[in-house]
Amino acid sequence: MDHTWMHTALELARSTEGQTYPNPMVGAVVVKEGRIVGMGAHLRSGEAHAEVHALDMAGNKTEGATIYVTLEPCSHYGRTPPCAKQIIEAGIARVVVAATDPNPLVAGNGIQMMKDAGLEVVTGVKQEEAAYLNRKFFHFIESGRPYVTAKTASSLDGKTATATGESQWITGEEAREDVHKERRRCDGILVGIGTVLSDDPSLTARVPETGVTPTRVVLDSTLRMPENSRMLKDGAAPVYILTNEPADTEKTRRLEEAGAEVIPVASGVKNISAVLDVLGETKIVSLFVEGGAGVLGSFLEAEMIQEYLMYVAPMVIGGENAPGVYQGSGISTLQEARAFSLIKEETFGQDRKYTLQAGE
Amino acid sequence: MDHTWMHTALELARSTEGQTYPNPMVGAVVVKEGRIVGMGAHLRSGEAHAEVHALDMAGNKTEGATIYVTLEPCSHYGRTPPCAKQIIEAGIARVVVAATDPNPLVAGNGIQMMKDAGLEVVTGVKQEEAAYLNRKFFHFIESGRPYVTAKTASSLDGKTATATGESQWITGEEAREDVHKERRRCDGILVGIGTVLSDDPSLTARVPETGVTPTRVVLDSTLRMPENSRMLKDGAAPVYILTNEPADTEKTRRLEEAGAEVIPVASGVKNISAVLDVLGETKIVSLFVEGGAGVLGSFLEAEMIQEYLMYVAPMVIGGENAPGVYQGSGISTLQEARAFSLIKEETFGQDRKYTLQAGE
Amino acid sequence: MDHTWMHTALELARSTEGQTYPNPMVGAVVVKEGRIVGMGAHLRSGEAHAEVHALDMAGNKTEGATIYVTLEPCSHYGRTPPCAKQIIEAGIARVVVAATDPNPLVAGNGIQMMKDAGLEVVTGVKQEEAAYLNRKFFHFIESGRPYVTAKTASSLDGKTATATGESQWITGEEAREDVHKERRRCDGILVGIGTVLSDDPSLTARVPETGVTPTRVVLDSTLRMPENSRMLKDGAAPVYILTNEPADTEKTRRLEEAGAEVIPVASGVKNISAVLDVLGETKIVSLFVEGGAGVLGSFLEAEMIQEYLMYVAPMVIGGENAPGVYQGSGISTLQEARAFSLIKEETFGQDRKYTLQAGE
Amino acid sequence: MDHTWMHTALELARSTEGQTYPNPMVGAVVVKEGRIVGMGAHLRSGEAHAEVHALDMAGNKTEGATIYVTLEPCSHYGRTPPCAKQIIEAGIARVVVAATDPNPLVAGNGIQMMKDAGLEVVTGVKQEEAAYLNRKFFHFIESGRPYVTAKTASSLDGKTATATGESQWITGEEAREDVHKERRRCDGILVGIGTVLSDDPSLTARVPETGVTPTRVVLDSTLRMPENSRMLKDGAAPVYILTNEPADTEKTRRLEEAGAEVIPVASGVKNISAVLDVLGETKIVSLFVEGGAGVLGSFLEAEMIQEYLMYVAPMVIGGENAPGVYQGSGISTLQEARAFSLIKEETFGQDRKYTLQAGE
Ligand SMILES: [Zn+2]
Ligand SMILES: [Zn+2]
Ligand SMILES: [Zn+2]
Ligand SMILES: [Zn+2]
Repeated sequence: MDHTWMHTALELARSTEGQTYPNPMVGAVVVKEGRIVGMGAHLRSGEAHAEVHALDMAGNKTEGATIYVTLEPCSHYGRTPPCAKQIIEAGIARVVVAATDPNPLVAGNGIQMMKDAGLEVVTGVKQEEAAYLNRKFFHFIESGRPYVTAKTASSLDGKTATATGESQWITGEEAREDVHKERRRCDGILVGIGTVLSDDPSLTARVPETGVTPTRVVLDSTLRMPENSRMLKDGAAPVYILTNEPADTEKTRRLEEAGAEVIPVASGVKNISAVLDVLGETKIVSLFVEGGAGVLGSFLEAEMIQEYLMYVAPMVIGGENAPGVYQGSGISTLQEARAFSLIKEETFGQDRKYTLQAGE
Repeated sequence: MDHTWMHTALELARSTEGQTYPNPMVGAVVVKEGRIVGMGAHLRSGEAHAEVHALDMAGNKTEGATIYVTLEPCSHYGRTPPCAKQIIEAGIARVVVAATDPNPLVAGNGIQMMKDAGLEVVTGVKQEEAAYLNRKFFHFIESGRPYVTAKTASSLDGKTATATGESQWITGEEAREDVHKERRRCDGILVGIGTVLSDDPSLTARVPETGVTPTRVVLDSTLRMPENSRMLKDGAAPVYILTNEPADTEKTRRLEEAGAEVIPVASGVKNISAVLDVLGETKIVSLFVEGGAGVLGSFLEAEMIQEYLMYVAPMVIGGENAPGVYQGSGISTLQEARAFSLIKEETFGQDRKYTLQAGE
Repeated sequence: MDHTWMHTALELARSTEGQTYPNPMVGAVVVKEGRIVGMGAHLRSGEAHAEVHALDMAGNKTEGATIYVTLEPCSHYGRTPPCAKQIIEAGIARVVVAATDPNPLVAGNGIQMMKDAGLEVVTGVKQEEAAYLNRKFFHFIESGRPYVTAKTASSLDGKTATATGESQWITGEEAREDVHKERRRCDGILVGIGTVLSDDPSLTARVPETGVTPTRVVLDSTLRMPENSRMLKDGAAPVYILTNEPADTEKTRRLEEAGAEVIPVASGVKNISAVLDVLGETKIVSLFVEGGAGVLGSFLEAEMIQEYLMYVAPMVIGGENAPGVYQGSGISTLQEARAFSLIKEETFGQDRKYTLQAGE
Repeated sequence: MDHTWMHTALELARSTEGQTYPNPMVGAVVVKEGRIVGMGAHLRSGEAHAEVHALDMAGNKTEGATIYVTLEPCSHYGRTPPCAKQIIEAGIARVVVAATDPNPLVAGNGIQMMKDAGLEVVTGVKQEEAAYLNRKFFHFIESGRPYVTAKTASSLDGKTATATGESQWITGEEAREDVHKERRRCDGILVGIGTVLSDDPSLTARVPETGVTPTRVVLDSTLRMPENSRMLKDGAAPVYILTNEPADTEKTRRLEEAGAEVIPVASGVKNISAVLDVLGETKIVSLFVEGGAGVLGSFLEAEMIQEYLMYVAPMVIGGENAPGVYQGSGISTLQEARAFSLIKEETFGQDRKYTLQAGE
């Protein structure tokens, strides 16, 4: 039954996708005498942890009960006592954990605290599923940089437009709708200034009912960003403009007046690892890189992409000068390319969507 | 039951794939009183037609019988009388035909001849299947040019090598074995001289038991073909070298001594429609274009590809200067690209194979 | 997004399967500005309703929020005020309901109360799914009788044993494990006294970690039940013995001493509708009828089975006197039999499991 | 390539299903230098063997060629010389055989003859497929009795009618059409006299275009068969009436005048092995047993069924006195029943069709 109840805890965690930023999705279930007596999930950064909600719902039934948590309970003192302590004090007898804390400095601390208090602790139940669910958060904690998802849409021969520049709608309506769902799964969406100047995109997730809109990030080495660009006017979410140092003071001022936050990158925005360091500091946990091909190429070259979403239309375009999905110098060895793993293959209308993960 | 027996006739036709060149695959079944009494297929150019074999096997049971033929019986007199006449003389009462003759000048003649003789003639039974089976032949008859199949193998972003030139084995062993099967389905295999100079390929179908090897065709504008290249030494099948006029007489002599046939193309080998006219005259019905990217690009640009076999490996290579599958200027409008139809999608190991047909 | 959040509410409800008896499974989600701010489910009869848990978790964020509930909020005053009232008082602006109350007397009352208070109320979102989830409860409320699931296991020709009586393990291990899961989904398990006398079954769900064990019900017209039968000794769940009137007083006393509850059925235990009326009064909402064939036949004949779980082994046994799955006179017309609908077909090892629902 | 060409030979054999009685289906292909030069199948008892047709078509190309035969070439002299001899004389260099002769007395003789003559002989290529294709013939040769296929159609609980006798159309139209296809795959169709008296069936395969209709066989212990029964009047195929000895002479005379062949069975028609011996002597290779339940039960009890076709409708009928598919005493041990193997599971409309083979 451990698997059944951890499954429920994972469903609880999954239902909060997109709203826990910059925290992981966590679910918890309290079970006593074969019944669920409490359920909870972490709903928002700064609010109660999943365990607290679940213990609250269980009320006076926690004595001797088992708690299922998708992530190791925390052990640090903040505004509230650590969850491990609250579990102990609630009289819980047994703790079942899916994944341990990705931060090596604190990993196992909460577990140890509960073991020391005499609780039975089981770890690793549905661990892989839990780790996959929070792969972006785990990557962020371990590297300090956002988890990067690169999205491309092309013909079967990798082209995004004809040589004469005709590009609109390579992939179909269904594929484009799916892109909006994918955007919502990230905290930040990044494009190059070229994309802003040519398309003036709003980069919202176009899911109007939801108040959660990813931060828009523009790589703009020389601050060419127009103050009246759509994403500055709509106010739907913050806009970060990353630029080279030194940044033009006057233009910076005008952009900030228009609502943007201008962030200089010392080594320049071509330096992707520096860009990601900066974004990591702003607590962007997961970044959706949309393009254009130059920006995507820089990320690929820097080996800073963790996940690839490739939408492919069943057609051939050809043209050696027709734009491809990635500019720059690409991956250097086939061995590296071969380490990719294909996670999922889906069909949207006529198009295919491939989800790949980079090798290690 | 007409469908059941036509199915058998189509199976007979299909079993001769690769050996009837330059004729179509044709099967015939004679049925009397609910039983098959004769079966036949056209086995080789210059030999008996399918109907003749089937009537032969039926012997004295043809009187009042039905014959199922996948292609309209012929009506022209050659070394032997036309099949339509032989069917009439055999006393056949009913003729069921899948596809009519693709040659507009003779289409319907055989059928008319049999109708005039009082036979019942039914056409169109499994017509689509029969037309697809002989699509290459039909295209050849209608256009005078070979049916062109273009084969490519690339990463998901359309690259055939890294920017540094590393290219061997993008796709896996299973995909490469399938390429050998596909080669056998064509009468000719075409490559550019660049591919010969860099890889020195033998371009055989590597199915040793079968004596049927496609003709090798090299596009070589300035006769750079080495006399000691592998395909000239192995003698496995004819080698045609298409070159620009005027061709160097001395080099031509040496290549012909080495076993090649040098064929000048008046308007030059960059003129793909001229190249296909020339190959059509040599009775190459179906042509497998393997590359390189320059040659493939010329065919794409000229809109002379009927079928695309795209092997795609689940990896990303990137690199704007990394070679793609098609050089040249490509397809000019997305509308044209969108007219492609995806016929089949298969999996070979980790790789996908897409079979597309060009739009009309 | 309504569908997405109702999906979460349904998942919450589903996670409580088997523990809300005799109440329905209900889940609730509170959403504000595109985020889940509260989640809850009804966990146990007598305890808080789903809406209350969800509002509790939402705390001070309920003002202007939307609540998703899988079942219409209640409108009756009990120990606590009705959920409809609590929703109004919490300042909720919009209520999305999947299914309305199955009790025609109160259906719509809660909705009306909230509408009168000025809340926007939407009904019918994922209604079919919600109704199927609680089909047993709905049937119980509408009819006052338990929802009956009949389980059989036989060969492809409907036999449960050979004519010589050999019967053990027609179906395989996987199918038998699935039966244990199915038992857990009901509140009561019913067998005839013949099954008790021959097999002395414990009829537990054999899922030791769960404290929820269905009530065991025995149809025993003349009180032949042994006081030392296994299900009386294990004390794992209540045992009801339904018997004909007048019941032997002394035997009744001894059985009750042994832990059983002896319940006389005025019109006799062969009267299935009377049996179900009695069980309905004891608040058994869903009943799993295991056999033997005589009992199953009585239920079938009385047209009192709502759902059939038929495990079928791919073998033939034959034998006109070999026992079949249903004794008695069976269904009277083929039209009635034809009204069955096949809900699901699953494979367990070599065996097939068919889930059918009776027609109406 | 051996597998490819044997596949063609098997396709040729398969196309003659239903017309080679009492001979097996055999196909042959002659291949020279990687091309098919001859194809043939055995079309009808008394006519040329597959090898002869294939060698005929190959004409003067047999020297040094390979022949693919689905069954070992014959070695006995009849009206024509044995195929093994004709293969040798044709100059064939290599013989590839799928299955060897099922008759242990002659098995291997043809192969030995060809080996002695210096030919290379390979056996066992696609052997299993070839043996399955001719499983009925092989069974007949090995046992002297027809291969018995029992067909039943019932509800999921094995009933063919309600207890009140309503029975028409348990299974749907698609399933009944499939039964007609299955009938055509047998040489004989057997029913009991009860079925004749109640339904007066014609038992034709209802495939009007085909002249091949199975022999109708009636088990009729006391010659109650009406002279004007439909199957005697239609003359569509022979009618055998198997009866107990001594048979009423006058009734026998009248039935034979009506077109039947009356065949006494010394030990009586209840003795299924005697019935099958008699039918084996009339060269019925494969027998389709349709019913009624009494006849089917006798075959089951006698363990004389090789293949079961069970059409099952997704409904429950119940009724201990409602007729089941098999009367009699059935299979005696579950171990025997468990030895059945499920060969195929198909769907026809709402119904399932299970094909099982008896264990050994
Ligand atoms: Zn915590
Ligand atoms: Zn002809
Ligand atoms: Zn309530
Ligand atoms: Zn022979």
